[in-house]
Amino acid sequence: MIGQLNHVAIAVSDIKKASNFYHFNLGADISELHELPEHGVQTVFVDLQNTKIELITPLGENSPIKAFLEKNPEGGIHHVCYEVLDINKATKKLSSEGYRILGDGQPKIGAHGKPVIFLHPKDCFGCLIELEEK
Amino acid sequence: MIGQLNHVAIAVSDIKKASNFYHFNLGADISELHELPEHGVQTVFVDLQNTKIELITPLGENSPIKAFLEKNPEGGIHHVCYEVLDINKATKKLSSEGYRILGDGQPKIGAHGKPVIFLHPKDCFGCLIELEEK
Repeated sequence: MIGQLNHVAIAVSDIKKASNFYHFNLGADISELHELPEHGVQTVFVDLQNTKIELITPLGENSPIKAFLEKNPEGGIHHVCYEVLDINKATKKLSSEGYRILGDGQPKIGAHGKPVIFLHPKDCFGCLIELEEK
Repeated sequence: MIGQLNHVAIAVSDIKKASNFYHFNLGADISELHELPEHGVQTVFVDLQNTKIELITPLGENSPIKAFLEKNPEGGIHHVCYEVLDINKATKKLSSEGYRILGDGQPKIGAHGKPVIFLHPKDCFGCLIELEEK
Protein backbone atom coordinates (compact mmCIF):
# COMPACT_ATOMS: atom_id res chain seq x y z
CA MET A 1 0.00 0.00 0.00
CA ILE A 2 2.54 2.63 1.01
CA GLY A 3 4.98 3.74 -1.67
CA GLN A 4 7.71 6.32 -1.43
CA LEU A 5 8.66 8.39 1.59
CA ASN A 6 7.29 11.79 0.60
CA HIS A 7 8.99 13.73 3.39
CA VAL A 8 10.21 13.82 6.96
CA ALA A 9 8.90 16.83 8.89
CA ILE A 10 11.21 18.39 11.45
CA ALA A 11 9.65 20.98 13.78
CA VAL A 12 11.91 23.87 14.76
CA SER A 13 11.40 27.04 16.75
CA ASP A 14 13.72 29.15 14.57
CA ILE A 15 13.25 28.18 10.94
CA LYS A 16 15.78 30.70 9.61
CA LYS A 17 18.56 29.32 11.79
CA ALA A 18 17.54 25.74 10.96
CA SER A 19 17.47 26.53 7.22
CA ASN A 20 20.91 28.11 7.45
CA PHE A 21 22.22 24.97 9.17
CA TYR A 22 20.90 22.74 6.40
CA HIS A 23 22.15 25.05 3.66
CA PHE A 24 25.47 26.38 4.88
CA ASN A 25 26.64 23.65 7.25
CA LEU A 26 25.15 20.53 5.66
CA GLY A 27 25.38 21.95 2.13
CA ALA A 28 21.85 21.05 0.99
CA ASP A 29 19.65 22.96 -1.43
CA ILE A 30 16.75 24.64 0.35
CA SER A 31 13.60 26.39 -0.83
CA GLU A 32 12.25 29.80 -0.01
CA LEU A 33 10.10 30.15 3.12
CA HIS A 34 6.46 29.22 2.45
CA GLU A 35 3.61 30.44 4.62
CA LEU A 36 0.69 28.05 4.98
CA PRO A 37 -1.77 29.93 7.22
CA GLU A 38 -4.53 27.34 6.64
CA HIS A 39 -2.21 24.69 8.12
CA GLY A 40 -0.74 26.89 10.84
CA VAL A 41 2.87 26.47 9.73
CA GLN A 42 5.70 28.10 7.84
CA THR A 43 7.87 25.65 5.97
CA VAL A 44 11.21 25.38 4.17
CA PHE A 45 11.92 22.34 1.97
CA VAL A 46 15.36 20.72 2.10
CA ASP A 47 16.12 18.81 -1.13
CA LEU A 48 17.72 15.40 -0.48
CA GLN A 49 17.61 14.09 -4.08
CA ASN A 50 15.52 11.02 -3.24
CA THR A 51 13.09 12.77 -0.86
CA LYS A 52 12.82 15.95 1.19
CA ILE A 53 12.95 17.26 4.70
CA GLU A 54 10.26 19.77 5.58
CA LEU A 55 11.34 22.17 8.26
CA ILE A 56 8.17 23.47 9.92
CA THR A 57 7.58 26.20 12.47
CA PRO A 58 4.30 27.49 13.96
CA LEU A 59 2.32 30.21 12.21
CA GLY A 60 -0.51 31.77 14.21
CA GLU A 61 -1.94 30.94 17.61
CA ASN A 62 -3.59 27.63 16.79
CA SER A 63 -0.69 25.94 15.08
CA PRO A 64 -0.91 22.12 15.26
CA ILE A 65 2.80 21.94 16.12
CA LYS A 66 2.71 24.46 19.00
CA ALA A 67 2.25 21.77 21.68
CA PHE A 68 5.07 19.68 20.18
CA LEU A 69 7.49 22.61 20.44
CA GLU A 70 6.37 23.38 23.99
CA LYS A 71 7.30 19.80 24.87
CA ASN A 72 10.45 19.84 22.69
CA PRO A 73 11.65 23.46 22.74
CA GLU A 74 14.78 22.69 20.73
CA GLY A 75 12.68 21.05 18.03
CA GLY A 76 12.58 17.47 16.84
CA ILE A 77 11.43 15.02 14.19
CA HIS A 78 7.67 15.56 14.05
CA HIS A 79 6.31 13.06 11.51
CA VAL A 80 6.99 10.95 8.43
CA CYS A 81 4.80 11.04 5.31
CA TYR A 82 4.30 8.00 3.09
CA GLU A 83 2.63 8.12 -0.32
CA VAL A 84 -0.40 5.99 -1.17
CA LEU A 85 -2.17 5.63 -4.52
CA ASP A 86 -5.71 5.85 -3.12
CA ILE A 87 -6.26 7.72 0.14
CA ASN A 88 -9.90 6.67 0.49
CA LYS A 89 -9.03 3.01 0.12
CA ALA A 90 -6.14 3.36 2.60
CA THR A 91 -8.38 5.20 5.08
CA LYS A 92 -11.11 2.55 4.90
CA LYS A 93 -8.63 -0.32 5.25
CA LEU A 94 -6.84 1.14 8.26
CA SER A 95 -10.07 2.27 9.97
CA SER A 96 -11.56 -1.20 9.56
CA GLU A 97 -8.39 -2.62 11.13
CA GLY A 98 -8.87 -0.41 14.19
CA TYR A 99 -6.35 2.33 13.42
CA ARG A 100 -7.47 5.78 14.51
CA ILE A 101 -7.38 8.62 11.98
CA LEU A 102 -6.81 12.02 13.58
CA GLY A 103 -9.60 14.60 13.24
CA ASP A 104 -12.96 13.38 11.98
CA GLY A 105 -11.53 10.25 10.40
CA GLN A 106 -11.77 11.49 6.80
CA PRO A 107 -9.02 12.69 4.41
CA LYS A 108 -8.35 16.42 4.30
CA ILE A 109 -6.44 18.54 1.80
CA GLY A 110 -2.88 18.70 3.12
CA ALA A 111 -0.05 21.19 2.78
CA HIS A 112 0.78 20.05 -0.79
CA GLY A 113 -2.83 20.41 -2.00
CA LYS A 114 -3.40 16.64 -1.97
CA PRO A 115 -5.65 14.59 0.32
CA VAL A 116 -3.96 13.31 3.47
CA ILE A 117 -4.70 11.55 6.73
CA PHE A 118 -2.71 11.34 9.95
CA LEU A 119 -2.68 8.10 11.93
CA HIS A 120 -2.77 8.26 15.73
CA PRO A 121 0.82 7.87 16.99
CA LYS A 122 -0.30 5.63 19.86
CA ASP A 123 -1.45 3.09 17.26
CA CYS A 124 1.82 3.38 15.30
CA PHE A 125 4.53 2.72 17.89
CA GLY A 126 4.87 6.36 18.95
CA CYS A 127 5.38 7.64 15.40
CA LEU A 128 3.06 10.23 13.82
CA ILE A 129 2.41 8.96 10.28
CA GLU A 130 0.91 11.03 7.48
CA LEU A 131 -0.40 9.28 4.37
CA GLU A 132 -0.65 11.45 1.26
CA GLU A 133 -2.31 10.52 -2.02
CA LYS A 134 0.31 10.49 -4.76
CA MET B 1 27.54 18.08 1.11
CA ILE B 2 24.67 15.82 2.15
CA GLY B 3 23.11 13.70 -0.57
CA GLN B 4 20.28 11.20 -0.27
CA LEU B 5 18.34 10.32 2.83
CA ASN B 6 19.74 6.87 3.58
CA HIS B 7 17.14 5.95 6.21
CA VAL B 8 14.87 7.07 9.00
CA ALA B 9 15.34 5.03 12.19
CA ILE B 10 12.26 4.35 14.29
CA ALA B 11 12.87 2.86 17.74
CA VAL B 12 10.26 0.38 18.94
CA SER B 13 9.93 -1.84 21.98
CA ASP B 14 8.28 -4.72 20.10
CA ILE B 15 9.92 -5.09 16.70
CA LYS B 16 7.77 -8.05 15.63
CA LYS B 17 4.54 -6.16 16.20
CA ALA B 18 5.97 -3.06 14.50
CA SER B 19 7.17 -5.13 11.52
CA ASN B 20 3.74 -6.71 11.22
CA PHE B 21 2.13 -3.24 11.21
CA TYR B 22 4.37 -2.07 8.36
CA HIS B 23 3.92 -5.28 6.39
CA PHE B 24 0.29 -6.28 6.92
CA ASN B 25 -1.39 -2.95 7.67
CA LEU B 26 0.70 -0.53 5.63
CA GLY B 27 1.50 -3.14 2.96
CA ALA B 28 5.25 -2.49 2.73
CA ASP B 29 7.99 -5.00 1.95
CA ILE B 30 10.08 -5.77 5.01
CA SER B 31 13.33 -7.63 5.58
CA GLU B 32 14.16 -10.44 7.94
CA LEU B 33 15.22 -9.52 11.47
CA HIS B 34 18.93 -8.67 11.68
CA GLU B 35 20.88 -8.87 14.92
CA LEU B 36 23.68 -6.33 15.30
CA PRO B 37 25.20 -7.13 18.71
CA GLU B 38 28.15 -4.78 18.13
CA HIS B 39 25.64 -1.92 17.76
CA GLY B 40 23.29 -3.10 20.50
CA VAL B 41 20.24 -3.31 18.24
CA GLN B 42 18.05 -5.67 16.28
CA THR B 43 16.72 -4.17 13.08
CA VAL B 44 14.12 -4.77 10.37
CA PHE B 45 14.29 -2.76 7.13
CA VAL B 46 11.09 -1.40 5.59
CA ASP B 47 11.48 -0.82 1.83
CA LEU B 48 9.96 2.49 0.69
CA GLN B 49 11.27 2.43 -2.92
CA ASN B 50 13.16 5.73 -2.62
CA THR B 51 14.63 5.10 0.85
CA LYS B 52 14.06 2.88 3.87
CA ILE B 53 12.77 2.89 7.39
CA GLU B 54 14.90 1.03 9.90
CA LEU B 55 12.91 -0.33 12.80
CA ILE B 56 15.32 -0.76 15.70
CA THR B 57 14.94 -2.36 19.10
CA PRO B 58 17.50 -2.83 21.88
CA LEU B 59 19.77 -5.87 21.93
CA GLY B 60 21.73 -6.46 25.14
CA GLU B 61 22.08 -4.39 28.28
CA ASN B 62 24.10 -1.49 26.88
CA SER B 63 21.99 -0.69 23.87
CA PRO B 64 22.36 2.94 22.74
CA ILE B 65 18.58 3.18 22.30
CA LYS B 66 17.65 1.88 25.76
CA ALA B 67 17.39 5.37 27.28
CA PHE B 68 15.30 6.62 24.35
CA LEU B 69 12.75 3.84 24.87
CA GLU B 70 12.67 4.45 28.63
CA LYS B 71 11.73 8.05 27.82
CA ASN B 72 9.41 7.04 24.95
CA PRO B 73 8.04 3.62 25.91
CA GLU B 74 5.74 3.43 22.88
CA GLY B 75 8.68 4.12 20.55
CA GLY B 76 9.35 7.05 18.28
CA ILE B 77 11.40 8.46 15.43
CA HIS B 78 14.99 8.12 16.65
CA HIS B 79 17.21 9.62 13.95
CA VAL B 80 17.64 10.45 10.28
CA CYS B 81 20.68 9.39 8.24
CA TYR B 82 22.02 11.46 5.35
CA GLU B 83 24.66 10.23 2.91
CA VAL B 84 27.94 12.09 2.34
CA LEU B 85 30.68 11.34 -0.17
CA ASP B 86 33.59 11.85 2.23
CA ILE B 87 32.96 11.29 5.93
CA ASN B 88 36.38 12.60 7.01
CA LYS B 89 35.89 15.85 5.10
CA ALA B 90 32.37 16.23 6.52
CA THR B 91 33.61 15.53 10.04
CA LYS B 92 36.41 18.10 9.78
CA LYS B 93 34.10 20.75 8.30
CA LEU B 94 31.39 20.35 10.93
CA SER B 95 33.85 20.09 13.83
CA SER B 96 35.60 23.27 12.70
CA GLU B 97 32.19 24.98 12.60
CA GLY B 98 31.57 24.02 16.23
CA TYR B 99 29.26 21.05 15.74
CA ARG B 100 29.77 18.29 18.28
CA ILE B 101 30.31 14.74 17.04
CA LEU B 102 29.08 12.10 19.49
CA GLY B 103 31.68 9.74 20.97
CA ASP B 104 35.33 10.62 20.46
CA GLY B 105 34.65 12.89 17.52
CA GLN B 106 35.90 10.47 14.87
CA PRO B 107 33.99 8.35 12.34
CA LYS B 108 33.15 4.78 13.36
CA ILE B 109 31.98 1.81 11.31
CA GLY B 110 28.19 1.91 11.43
CA ALA B 111 25.47 -0.69 11.13
CA HIS B 112 25.87 -0.94 7.33
CA GLY B 113 29.63 -1.49 7.50
CA LYS B 114 30.41 2.07 6.37
CA PRO B 115 31.94 4.93 8.36
CA VAL B 116 29.43 7.12 10.15
CA ILE B 117 29.23 9.98 12.62
CA PHE B 118 26.35 11.20 14.77
CA LEU B 119 25.89 14.93 15.34
CA HIS B 120 24.79 16.14 18.78
CA PRO B 121 21.01 16.74 18.64
CA LYS B 122 21.33 19.91 20.72
CA ASP B 123 23.37 21.43 17.88
CA CYS B 124 20.86 20.26 15.24
CA PHE B 125 17.52 21.63 16.45
CA GLY B 126 16.65 18.61 18.56
CA CYS B 127 17.21 16.12 15.74
CA LEU B 128 19.73 13.29 15.98
CA ILE B 129 21.53 13.24 12.63
CA GLU B 130 23.70 10.40 11.36
CA LEU B 131 26.00 11.00 8.40
CA GLU B 132 27.08 7.88 6.50
CA GLU B 133 29.74 7.68 3.81
CA LYS B 134 28.11 6.57 0.57
